Amino acid sequence: MGLAENQLSFDVIEEWIKKNPKASICTPEGVAEFKNVANFQDYHGFPDFRKAIANFMSKARGGRVKFDPDRVVMAGGATGANETVMFCLADPGDAFLVPSPYYPAFYRDLGWRTGVKIVPVDCDSSNNFQVTRAALEAAYEKARNNNINIKGLIITNPSNPLGTTVDRDTLTSLVKFINDKNIHLVCDEIYAGTVFSCPKFTCVTEVLQDVKNCNRDLIHIVYSLSKDMGVPGLRIGIVYSYNDAVVNCARKMSSFGLVSSQTQHMLSAMLLDDEFVSNFLETSSKRLARRHRFFTTGLEEVGINCLKGNAGLYCWMDLRKLLKDQTFEAEMVLWRMIINEVKLNVSPGSSFRCVEPGWFRVC
Amino acid sequence: MGLAENQLSFDVIEEWIKKNPKASICTPEGVAEFKNVANFQDYHGFPDFRKAIANFMSKARGGRVKFDPDRVVMAGGATGANETVMFCLADPGDAFLVPSPYYPAFYRDLGWRTGVKIVPVDCDSSNNFQVTRAALEAAYEKARNNNINIKGLIITNPSNPLGTTVDRDTLTSLVKFINDKNIHLVCDEIYAGTVFSCPKFTCVTEVLQDVKNCNRDLIHIVYSLSKDMGVPGLRIGIVYSYNDAVVNCARKMSSFGLVSSQTQHMLSAMLLDDEFVSNFLETSSKRLARRHRFFTTGLEEVGINCLKGNAGLYCWMDLRKLLKDQTFEAEMVLWRMIINEVKLNVSPGSSFRCVEPGWFRVC
Repeated sequence: MGLAENQLSFDVIEEWIKKNPKASICTPEGVAEFKNVANFQDYHGFPDFRKAIANFMSKARGGRVKFDPDRVVMAGGATGANETVMFCLADPGDAFLVPSPYYPAFYRDLGWRTGVKIVPVDCDSSNNFQVTRAALEAAYEKARNNNINIKGLIITNPSNPLGTTVDRDTLTSLVKFINDKNIHLVCDEIYAGTVFSCPKFTCVTEVLQDVKNCNRDLIHIVYSLSKDMGVPGLRIGIVYSYNDAVVNCARKMSSFGLVSSQTQHMLSAMLLDDEFVSNFLETSSKRLARRHRFFTTGLEEVGINCLKGNAGLYCWMDLRKLLKDQTFEAEMVLWRMIINEVKLNVSPGSSFRCVEPGWFRVC
Repeated sequence: MGLAENQLSFDVIEEWIKKNPKASICTPEGVAEFKNVANFQDYHGFPDFRKAIANFMSKARGGRVKFDPDRVVMAGGATGANETVMFCLADPGDAFLVPSPYYPAFYRDLGWRTGVKIVPVDCDSSNNFQVTRAALEAAYEKARNNNINIKGLIITNPSNPLGTTVDRDTLTSLVKFINDKNIHLVCDEIYAGTVFSCPKFTCVTEVLQDVKNCNRDLIHIVYSLSKDMGVPGLRIGIVYSYNDAVVNCARKMSSFGLVSSQTQHMLSAMLLDDEFVSNFLETSSKRLARRHRFFTTGLEEVGINCLKGNAGLYCWMDLRKLLKDQTFEAEMVLWRMIINEVKLNVSPGSSFRCVEPGWFRVC
């Protein structure tokens, strides 16, 4: 509880490993490769690894989009991937718009060492926390009035903590916005493979064609296997950019966050196995849906509603009616009660910079 | 040729892997651990991994020093470890003294993203390129006169490209210098386990007791398994500091360069096996000595001398007498001839910022 871990489908991975001992450099069948693999240190990564990641990224998005292996750049987890993109795009003091509520470690990932600032874009329950053009314009103008240089917009789609996807119209509107302002769009899609019910996930790549004169140089995707495959320990972070300069710059920086060649080697074989990938994604999606249904139905039975979610590893729980008053102080009082008496490790909305008191993330 | 790769003792590692299938999460014997290992993401690293690294660091230094596992911090290779230390110790624009000739990628590792500058300390063949107090004082004063804030000194011991160790008296003098100036000492000891002949390696830890009132908070070691074990692909970078604040700060930053948990898990078992470690280090040292002797003897037979080396994966070859004149232009002419006609990928001394023309690194 409290950790965004996806532990539901390890049996599928374990089964594959047992059937494919040659994929590993740690088995009698595969150890002959140890020397070549462990010694290998090309910053581009193994060609097969880049192909395997592009293949998995496509399949995790329903096969509706294709990715070019030559645009796949390695980073140390999504943490490192987000930081790398910031180093590529911004100077210290520059800022990125980030719709709230958002992942609290963005302060670390995006800003600690780069000096980049976060400017929140306030979203609320009136439209299920979807970001609007009006909210973007307001945040953008306010920042400019405060002499803050906005370099781009970062969205997490599917959203952590909401557990929802950005709908296609909204996504199109976001791409239009950043094109109009000539600023960058970084799409953190690390939960793309956790979509378990309708509406289906829309990847930013799908809407690029819908926007007239879209400047693809402004579009960047951050990916990872930490959530979709539940393997954060393996530190697979990916920068995928439509901008050649960003690909080149990020690749130079990848010396700071290369993926272990041992891990690249094993995942190359695993993720180029289409049968495995299809089976894994289908199984994972079904199991996530079952857990989600089980959990939200249980909450409903005791009168607690959640934002209608279709993705991710958590629920965005509405406890507004349990607050003594509609303040963040009351949210903290309720949070301590849940932690200490109910013994559930949930996270208060204020920790995600939610503007409405009374929401909690539970996972 | 041209790459500082240690490929001589992989058979010892492969033998261990075959005998210890349970150590891996990629074998039928070890796969039951996959879930716990791949999902694990503690920034401190597995306790056994920290113990294993401390154990290997000690044994690679002849067992004369001990290391505290709680001071072992993970980073993405030595590349990431060097950068992490810079982020911990310096602000953009601050500088570090670095004795020349030095590893050219220091510009990337130390400076690209941190904004830290390098101030070379000139060393030459008159005393076998050992750094002197006078050279340090001169570089320090010159920097101060140019309003450059010197935060510390970085040494690579054993040295890349020289293939020599820093002798104990020099090391003591360096520690005294940084203590007198109250600046930091970063000891890049990534070649500690490659010492193959006398004099033996002296770790900075051994001389701390020799310096009166030594402030240990100023002392930091960068380590890696890339050279000593020949596994750069696995990305094992380590920051080891006697300064609690640096340990804490580096550990927070390690989220950007964690070691793959798959790799941590396997190495924990391997490097806590004392018999394996002793055998590996002894075998590696003997084989490096044999190669070094074979290579330098061959060069001597054709009248080419090298700096007398006792460590590392290369020779520092003296071709001064083959230069048309004693200039770096003549060095480049000779280098092109070696590359294009002799077909040997050697590196000219100027690429390591050597102040004397005519030296070449060969590996």
